[in-house]
Amino acid sequence: MSEVIATYLVHDQKEDLEKKAEGIALGLTIGSWTDLPQLEKEQLKKHKGTVLSVEKLEEDEKTNAYFGGKRTKGLIRIAYPAANFSADLPAVLTTVFGKLSLDGEVKLTDLEFSSGFAQHFPGPKFGIKGIREKLNIYDRPLLMSIFKGVIGKDTAFLKDQLAEQLAGGMDLVKDDEILFENDQAPFFERVRMGRAVLDQIENETGRKALYAVNLTGRTYELRDKARRASEAGASALLFNVHAYGLDVLQALAEDPEITVPVMAHPAVSGAFGASGHYGVAYSLILGKLVRLAGADFSLFPSPYGSVALEKSEALAIAGECKSDYSPFREAFPVPSAGIHPGLVPILMKDFGTDCVINAGGGIHGHPNGTSAGAAAFSSAADAVLSGLSLDEQAEKDEQLRIALALWGQYEAAR
Amino acid sequence: MSEVIATYLVHDQKEDLEKKAEGIALGLTIGSWTDLPQLEKEQLKKHKGTVLSVEKLEEDEKTNAYFGGKRTKGLIRIAYPAANFSADLPAVLTTVFGKLSLDGEVKLTDLEFSSGFAQHFPGPKFGIKGIREKLNIYDRPLLMSIFKGVIGKDTAFLKDQLAEQLAGGMDLVKDDEILFENDQAPFFERVRMGRAVLDQIENETGRKALYAVNLTGRTYELRDKARRASEAGASALLFNVHAYGLDVLQALAEDPEITVPVMAHPAVSGAFGASGHYGVAYSLILGKLVRLAGADFSLFPSPYGSVALEKSEALAIAGECKSDYSPFREAFPVPSAGIHPGLVPILMKDFGTDCVINAGGGIHGHPNGTSAGAAAFSSAADAVLSGLSLDEQAEKDEQLRIALALWGQYEAAR
Ligand SMILES: [Mg+2]
Ligand SMILES: [Mg+2]
Repeated sequence: MSEVIATYLVHDQKEDLEKKAEGIALGLTIGSWTDLPQLEKEQLKKHKGTVLSVEKLEEDEKTNAYFGGKRTKGLIRIAYPAANFSADLPAVLTTVFGKLSLDGEVKLTDLEFSSGFAQHFPGPKFGIKGIREKLNIYDRPLLMSIFKGVIGKDTAFLKDQLAEQLAGGMDLVKDDEILFENDQAPFFERVRMGRAVLDQIENETGRKALYAVNLTGRTYELRDKARRASEAGASALLFNVHAYGLDVLQALAEDPEITVPVMAHPAVSGAFGASGHYGVAYSLILGKLVRLAGADFSLFPSPYGSVALEKSEALAIAGECKSDYSPFREAFPVPSAGIHPGLVPILMKDFGTDCVINAGGGIHGHPNGTSAGAAAFSSAADAVLSGLSLDEQAEKDEQLRIALALWGQYEAAR
Repeated sequence: MSEVIATYLVHDQKEDLEKKAEGIALGLTIGSWTDLPQLEKEQLKKHKGTVLSVEKLEEDEKTNAYFGGKRTKGLIRIAYPAANFSADLPAVLTTVFGKLSLDGEVKLTDLEFSSGFAQHFPGPKFGIKGIREKLNIYDRPLLMSIFKGVIGKDTAFLKDQLAEQLAGGMDLVKDDEILFENDQAPFFERVRMGRAVLDQIENETGRKALYAVNLTGRTYELRDKARRASEAGASALLFNVHAYGLDVLQALAEDPEITVPVMAHPAVSGAFGASGHYGVAYSLILGKLVRLAGADFSLFPSPYGSVALEKSEALAIAGECKSDYSPFREAFPVPSAGIHPGLVPILMKDFGTDCVINAGGGIHGHPNGTSAGAAAFSSAADAVLSGLSLDEQAEKDEQLRIALALWGQYEAAR
């Protein structure tokens, strides 16, 4: 049957999780059941939500202390027939977590789409494989860096920064997510600037790279803007999907005239992902759903920096980006924030070769400048892939040695 | 200066709220300040975020217990120059709560828009005054009801329910928010059905009413669908704005060819409004921002039912809908869920005459049926306006008497 299965973490004031589960399954579908006449039951059976499982979890003292009373904690799985909603994410979310999001201490932790329903969604247009083909890089994590201090600066400033980052060996450079349309560095000027710099690098070195330009503005302008950006030579788009809506990302991914990969930024997602009791699990919102909606890359806070996720959460996001159970192309996980060269071994151990190593301060803050910072990251990744320790590699590589002296190494820091 | 001021509730692990505030103000704007050369300081001054105030709040034992450690709780107000972002809500939210939403225990509690910046937003197209003119009702709360048990039913079934609700005296009827595009009751068929029923009521009784049809589907189809609905005789639109994005609501409100009021449903908003530590305050998301983006009505959980908000939160939402400090038309607050006739006096005391009394089960569950249920609400509102108690009114009105016997009265229930 075509359906969507939702998993909820509930904190029930009463001790009857079965009753709560039945109440949700009915309340979010046909409303009532036992009192219906037999004929109506026949008619409505195919619309009725079904409780698939109810699992009581261990009591959580911190939660009880916070709510000032005992809560029965449990995981509830409910199947919603696809006959109840149209095949779009706003309809799915409104059904499974519309009213319910307002009704007590409940968090949506997962959604499973039957294959009949999943086929309505595009998944990534390129995915890990397609991105690797674009870049002609198959055997190592990609290296990405971000512009720094861009507010109030012009396109010429950005051009120098882009060239410097690429010269250091970056495969990807992304705009700052808080860079919007402005007179000094307008979107299409950035697109053309990026094209020129990327072409130059390729002509000089044969290396390919991508520059993700921040797609911003009013919702109803975005699709056309993205089409024109593709046309004008953009190589990738950065998109603050959670400030707009997953359905907009999907529209970009589905559009045949938008011919570039899309990078989903996690901005604003903490508003519904951060609480342990409410909202939506990060693995769902930053992993499974952005992949389903068509992101080729998903950025999320790494478990190492100051803006950090729990390691289990970060790994769960990456797991959803690459899960074999998904019918969609894989999305590149991009654990971000607080990344420096000394973290590369643990990052590659945790996230594998199919990930993007993304750095800001860890590149620009290198004592010898941005190019040197980028080179130190390259060198650290080379070390891991050739089985050398960072210390061994640092003997051969001065920029890495300097970076390690400044930021340290993960093992040493624990 | 054109700017947006954000207020944050923070829970700091360190005890230095001033430092935290400065870190936010710089981190979300120009990145760094003290180390900049004087020339750059001059250039960037107009882009720098400014800490306006830092207020330490009382320690909160429950929060400390939950986080397992002391947190310094405080309110921080920061001004962001409008020069940093484009005049759209995704840009504002990404700037003031993009990365920050992921960065520790922080909740966005308010946004203030300078008048130069606010002028980029439409506010409600009709507002309370315009809606009252449409309905020719000036001196009492509006009465609204919702369809019940609509999943799997056809347009003829909805037509009967609509006629019955209007016959009972309802001013507004809304679709269930979980009714999506489906073969048995397609959107445009519902629009035409609604027009016919409303016209009939008006012809027969002279009474005007509105039927809010649920605008659903893919984002890029919505605007055209809403235009065609206006054209086809729709009288109002229901919109699950938080499953799409505030910017989409704004596009609907701004469109000159969409000539009907928009009712913002709170579905999914609990995902970012429910936590005390994270996310966005309900008063902001269900009050100030939906008004600014153009909702004529804002639905939210009443403080009385089982799906309930704290009374202070519900009042704050209504306050934002009607605040004189806003440059926009007023939006109708619609406290919903769990409303029955016995609650009408407290509802009118709490929310005033300029509100919508919205009921589902409290109408359809009346022992004498939907029309009787609707009439009982009318009667209860009449009582309050003419200074009678519900008991006094019930002596003259059998349907109200039956409703009170079933559901009780607010005072009695406490
Ligand atoms: Mg950034
Ligand atoms: Mg409903």
